[in-house]
Amino acid sequence: MAETPVRFGILGCAEIARKVSRAITVSPNSTLYAVGSRSLEKAKKFAAENGFPLSAKIYGSYEAVLDDPDVDAVYVPLPTSLHIQWAVLAAEKKKHLLLEKPVALNVAEFDRIIEACEANGVQCMDGTMWMHHPREAKMKEFLSDSQRFGQLKSIHSIFYSAGDEDFLKNDIRVKADLDSLGALGDLGWYCIRSILWAADYELPKIVTALPGTVINEAGVILACGSSLQWEDGKTSTFHCSFLYNMTMDITVVGTKGTLHVHDFVIPQEEKIASFSAASRTGFTEFVTGWVPLPFKHVVTTDLSQEACMVSEFSRLVRSINDGGSKPEIKWPTISRKTQLLIDAVKESIDKGLEPIQVEA
Amino acid sequence: MAETPVRFGILGCAEIARKVSRAITVSPNSTLYAVGSRSLEKAKKFAAENGFPLSAKIYGSYEAVLDDPDVDAVYVPLPTSLHIQWAVLAAEKKKHLLLEKPVALNVAEFDRIIEACEANGVQCMDGTMWMHHPREAKMKEFLSDSQRFGQLKSIHSIFYSAGDEDFLKNDIRVKADLDSLGALGDLGWYCIRSILWAADYELPKIVTALPGTVINEAGVILACGSSLQWEDGKTSTFHCSFLYNMTMDITVVGTKGTLHVHDFVIPQEEKIASFSAASRTGFTEFVTGWVPLPFKHVVTTDLSQEACMVSEFSRLVRSINDGGSKPEIKWPTISRKTQLLIDAVKESIDKGLEPIQVEA
Repeated sequence: MAETPVRFGILGCAEIARKVSRAITVSPNSTLYAVGSRSLEKAKKFAAENGFPLSAKIYGSYEAVLDDPDVDAVYVPLPTSLHIQWAVLAAEKKKHLLLEKPVALNVAEFDRIIEACEANGVQCMDGTMWMHHPREAKMKEFLSDSQRFGQLKSIHSIFYSAGDEDFLKNDIRVKADLDSLGALGDLGWYCIRSILWAADYELPKIVTALPGTVINEAGVILACGSSLQWEDGKTSTFHCSFLYNMTMDITVVGTKGTLHVHDFVIPQEEKIASFSAASRTGFTEFVTGWVPLPFKHVVTTDLSQEACMVSEFSRLVRSINDGGSKPEIKWPTISRKTQLLIDAVKESIDKGLEPIQVEA
Repeated sequence: MAETPVRFGILGCAEIARKVSRAITVSPNSTLYAVGSRSLEKAKKFAAENGFPLSAKIYGSYEAVLDDPDVDAVYVPLPTSLHIQWAVLAAEKKKHLLLEKPVALNVAEFDRIIEACEANGVQCMDGTMWMHHPREAKMKEFLSDSQRFGQLKSIHSIFYSAGDEDFLKNDIRVKADLDSLGALGDLGWYCIRSILWAADYELPKIVTALPGTVINEAGVILACGSSLQWEDGKTSTFHCSFLYNMTMDITVVGTKGTLHVHDFVIPQEEKIASFSAASRTGFTEFVTGWVPLPFKHVVTTDLSQEACMVSEFSRLVRSINDGGSKPEIKWPTISRKTQLLIDAVKESIDKGLEPIQVEA
């Protein structure tokens, strides 16, 4: 007995919504049901170009999507400054929420979104796709192996993306009124998430932004970084920028092992992804060489990571709507921790690189 | 007409001297000629075990090596605290100097070594082997390519090495009286060198140590890191530690390209080494994948990187002794810059992570 697919409504016609629309189409338990834009014409065009069925509802406003009783869940790729308004309203209309990152402008805003979701019994999940790639579980398996990896000690993450002239002038991610967190919210989000992920979501104690923040004329961050320190002596750094060639690395080192991945946010290929793991790495003093050599792990997937994300989200939605389950608290919890650290980095930058105590 | 090989004297029987002795044996223009230790027995054993010819001179002191008129050059792998005494004396005895890193405890000491070398017309080169691997030139070619790499923006380097209980208790590199710079001098040296190398030896303007320095009971650094900032906005971080699984990375990112190398200090294999280069990396928003993919560059070498180093050093020595050339100033210049930044990181750590202005 096939389950009814979760019917998605899309709020807005952002570029990223094209990728997620494709993922919804591809996911067996999900279907494109509605799209709303402030411009009906844009919504029509978007639906026609992105595989919406002919029966799909095309609305000239976001409200109309939320008022449609047949919409089970909404995907919200709106500019970050609009998240609180539309995410809270969606939750109040009992729509499950797949929310683009950064989830809010700050953790206080996100707390209002979480409250609305809890009060209305709806699932909240952010759009961090790589968390849903099967590679994630394989990497975590290595990091959790006390024999091969040992105790976690150090995490470094970078995410750069070379914005062209048009991006740096016109993209919503460099506009103070739309996405004031800039590269920190867009790229740093992934770095911070990868650091929390490696640390089993244990929050660091102190966050200190690195020197060298780049800020545009509107006051939006174009490049920044931070060091993070935990109670037990673990340390981490990350660096993000809209100004350099696309690079996306996680390096995680323990007492006995090292993990490298160079395409953690977006795998180089859709159906196959890899990472490198080294254990008890040594070399002889006498000749040049390593013993043992690092090992390349390859993970294949039938579904793209974004389709895996949509499928997992829809599985939770079905389980709440049909099975009476409670929403999975893991997802909003890690969204909140990520946002909390973004806030701390921003505060450190604003205070001239002062160390910031992280308080959950 | 074959040139006379440069006759090396080795001061002391350090573990690393075994590797360099092998490199001298393998290098066509170099020969093992003498070894001196405070213990004649140790020197005899060392010579017997490390391929010294039967005719080699075995001395019961370092002085005796320096007093042998047939020694052209000395290799000095002594504890860092002894460098100034023996390197200066070697130069005064007209011996060319292959000096292990860190070259001194601080730049003031190294300046005295440089002065002695200049006054006596002898070559000074430090023992940073990877600089002499043919891979170095290939990587530099990529970084210098304005089309493929663009303008240098960001450099990250890490070097970890997991010291066992014996190392952390007894190695000279954790002893305050022998190698007080600890992991900074031993491992951080390579990180700093790689950063300077990527930046064409342009010194940063400001050095700020990262939070999280680990220091042993004797006050020696076991783990530390730093951020570095240049006048033009380039930034860099490095991190080094004796406490984590062996890891040695350089990540260099420009406006158009990215270079990754994971075995920069010691290649994974003796005769073949690689690095990854990516240019104008992008991805489509619609499907998952990168265009173009990074490219793996493979470089082969007949001589190990340490033999390449010895050969280059001996080529310079021959050119000075036989051809009347002046010593190559490049090598002591980059040694000095590396030491200068080590001093700055140490000063920042000692001053509670204060930013330090670098003054050449």
